[in-house]
Amino acid sequence: MTSVSNSGPVSSVPSPSSAIVPVALGDRAYDIHIGPTILAEAGTLIKSVLARPQVIVITDETVARLHLETLTESLRKAGVKQETIILPPGESTKSLERLSRLLDDIFDIGIERSSTLVALGGGVIGDLVGFVAAIALRGIDFIQIPTTLLAQVDSSVGGKTGINVPAGKNLVGAFHQPRLVLADISVLDTLSRRELRAGYAEVVKYGAIDDFAFFQWLETHGADLMAGDTAARIAAVETSCRAKARIVAEDEREEADRRALLNFGHTFAHALESATGFGSRLLHGEAVSIGMVMAFDLSARLGLCEGQDAARFTRHLAELGLPTGPNSVPGVVWSASDLVARMASDKKVKNGRLTFVLARGIGQSFVTQDVAVEDLTAILNEAIAA
Amino acid sequence: MTSVSNSGPVSSVPSPSSAIVPVALGDRAYDIHIGPTILAEAGTLIKSVLARPQVIVITDETVARLHLETLTESLRKAGVKQETIILPPGESTKSLERLSRLLDDIFDIGIERSSTLVALGGGVIGDLVGFVAAIALRGIDFIQIPTTLLAQVDSSVGGKTGINVPAGKNLVGAFHQPRLVLADISVLDTLSRRELRAGYAEVVKYGAIDDFAFFQWLETHGADLMAGDTAARIAAVETSCRAKARIVAEDEREEADRRALLNFGHTFAHALESATGFGSRLLHGEAVSIGMVMAFDLSARLGLCEGQDAARFTRHLAELGLPTGPNSVPGVVWSASDLVARMASDKKVKNGRLTFVLARGIGQSFVTQDVAVEDLTAILNEAIAA
Repeated sequence: MTSVSNSGPVSSVPSPSSAIVPVALGDRAYDIHIGPTILAEAGTLIKSVLARPQVIVITDETVARLHLETLTESLRKAGVKQETIILPPGESTKSLERLSRLLDDIFDIGIERSSTLVALGGGVIGDLVGFVAAIALRGIDFIQIPTTLLAQVDSSVGGKTGINVPAGKNLVGAFHQPRLVLADISVLDTLSRRELRAGYAEVVKYGAIDDFAFFQWLETHGADLMAGDTAARIAAVETSCRAKARIVAEDEREEADRRALLNFGHTFAHALESATGFGSRLLHGEAVSIGMVMAFDLSARLGLCEGQDAARFTRHLAELGLPTGPNSVPGVVWSASDLVARMASDKKVKNGRLTFVLARGIGQSFVTQDVAVEDLTAILNEAIAA
Repeated sequence: MTSVSNSGPVSSVPSPSSAIVPVALGDRAYDIHIGPTILAEAGTLIKSVLARPQVIVITDETVARLHLETLTESLRKAGVKQETIILPPGESTKSLERLSRLLDDIFDIGIERSSTLVALGGGVIGDLVGFVAAIALRGIDFIQIPTTLLAQVDSSVGGKTGINVPAGKNLVGAFHQPRLVLADISVLDTLSRRELRAGYAEVVKYGAIDDFAFFQWLETHGADLMAGDTAARIAAVETSCRAKARIVAEDEREEADRRALLNFGHTFAHALESATGFGSRLLHGEAVSIGMVMAFDLSARLGLCEGQDAARFTRHLAELGLPTGPNSVPGVVWSASDLVARMASDKKVKNGRLTFVLARGIGQSFVTQDVAVEDLTAILNEAIAA
């Protein structure tokens, strides 16, 4: 295999024992460390970016049981003073009420502008702690230690932070980049198969966006990754993080259409999640899997890509055990018009028009506001009837 | 008089009939429009910065009664669609609870990333609405229409937004620059003498920071300004805004010591306000007046400036009817050690040390963390005993 380029799509996938991926954002630049023993090395890595050797670690009960001791021991060895806040697990933790209590807790502990928060957990902890760091004292530092595959390849990189409000998910938040991201591959062993699969959907997404070679690699090695192969996991997380880092560096605040490519499948996914209450019936990654299939089906219907590309993409997701249509969710009566209405209240709406990421082939995605509601409704009805 | 420079301290004060002050912040640059009929012209000025001709105006009951009709009529004439949210007046509006309800309200109305909020009011409305704009959909545009002298010369310019939490004032917030600031001088006629005086303290501050010529001008024209002279008011607001715009452009996020100069008198002021409950017993501008006197007294005690400079500065504040010592606040038993403790919990603390802005003379301020608690306590005790 040839070496990996950081300035364009990868044409091959590396197989290192650990990796450092830089996120090039000027004075907000940071590194993502990926490897099988990162959590045990966290103390030293964290200390190197601290103004003062002290942190507040924020995690949830589930993750605390599994991984807090390793982190605490590593910080102790490195001479970093630690305070810890443990929150309840689950999406309901990403609320304004919880935000308010967490702010009170960190002000009780005592912070100043040079203080640093550490988010140890999945997407909920990362998004909430990142937002607290964005607004406490008008912005302090934070470090991401993502413990799910989904957080390692997506939510912990790129600085999107936020919480949910009654009007919708992630409608309140800030762009606030972490100082450091630590992705320990071995923590993925503690995930359920279902959680791991849901995270895998976001990995496949990077193949769909602009990297056909990575998609081909996943067709060969995706099953190894799911089965626990460390080298495959490191390679997939590294390639995903490089892709995200590159896109975020080009369009940090989603002002051009560039960063919007990361939303491939997501306009559909958010409507599906909204209809199922953003709960455990349909995980975010599962919704993204179905949403990506819908994006390919819509692209094929509009004559943008070959039907065989859509079929090949869908087949890979199915082979890895991911859902490819809404009927895999038990007990939901779907309605195309209801899903369209939910899309219309999404924050990706621009001048009153829905934004979609569609594909001219696997690895050839693009952003468009030019989708007729009739075509959208047609593919939703097909998916519901399937 | 010579012309005003925008790249350094003013050496003379202009007397125009209206003014535009640019705030040079790259892709976040904006203009401050100052004049006697700005509110009536607001529709056209606002329309020129909108992506779509619609806004959500947020104000409080007091300001709505006085000025909402003029703004609404101006927006209507310019063809800008308007939704309006009216909040209760007072500092308690700057709470997380109110923020939560305001977010619900704007999502109910319906916003997208190209939406614009308009803050019509004093510092409370400006800070709250600016923060909502900073975090709704991870950042939308907002426009400041400050209706108090204090907001016109200070809080509406520079992008500091925020709310109060139980642990302290303005401890939660964001840097988020407005798209436009509209300062109508005629609205100052609706302020009480006390509110106007409180705002004047922040005007004098710009003389103290780095502009002795402006301080001299205020010694001559400050009384005219207070008496209602339009030209004097425009000149003072313009000079203040130019000073703030220059300092903010040099240090937008208070990362160097430059922007901290704007806190002249404020370490003391926040402790005084904290001790009196941030209420109407001691207005922010009154606390700043006393705080600036304390900063000069401390500077003189440390041999940094002449005692006669401190006396001259204090005399001007007293002549304009501003309080110059804590004993002007009725019914408070002051304690130096209590005030020092309150300063220690301020967000201006850095590596555990208090930050002060002191002076080598009027117009020669500088930032220091090098103040012994004994000297601090001594001047506080003197002020309390006076």
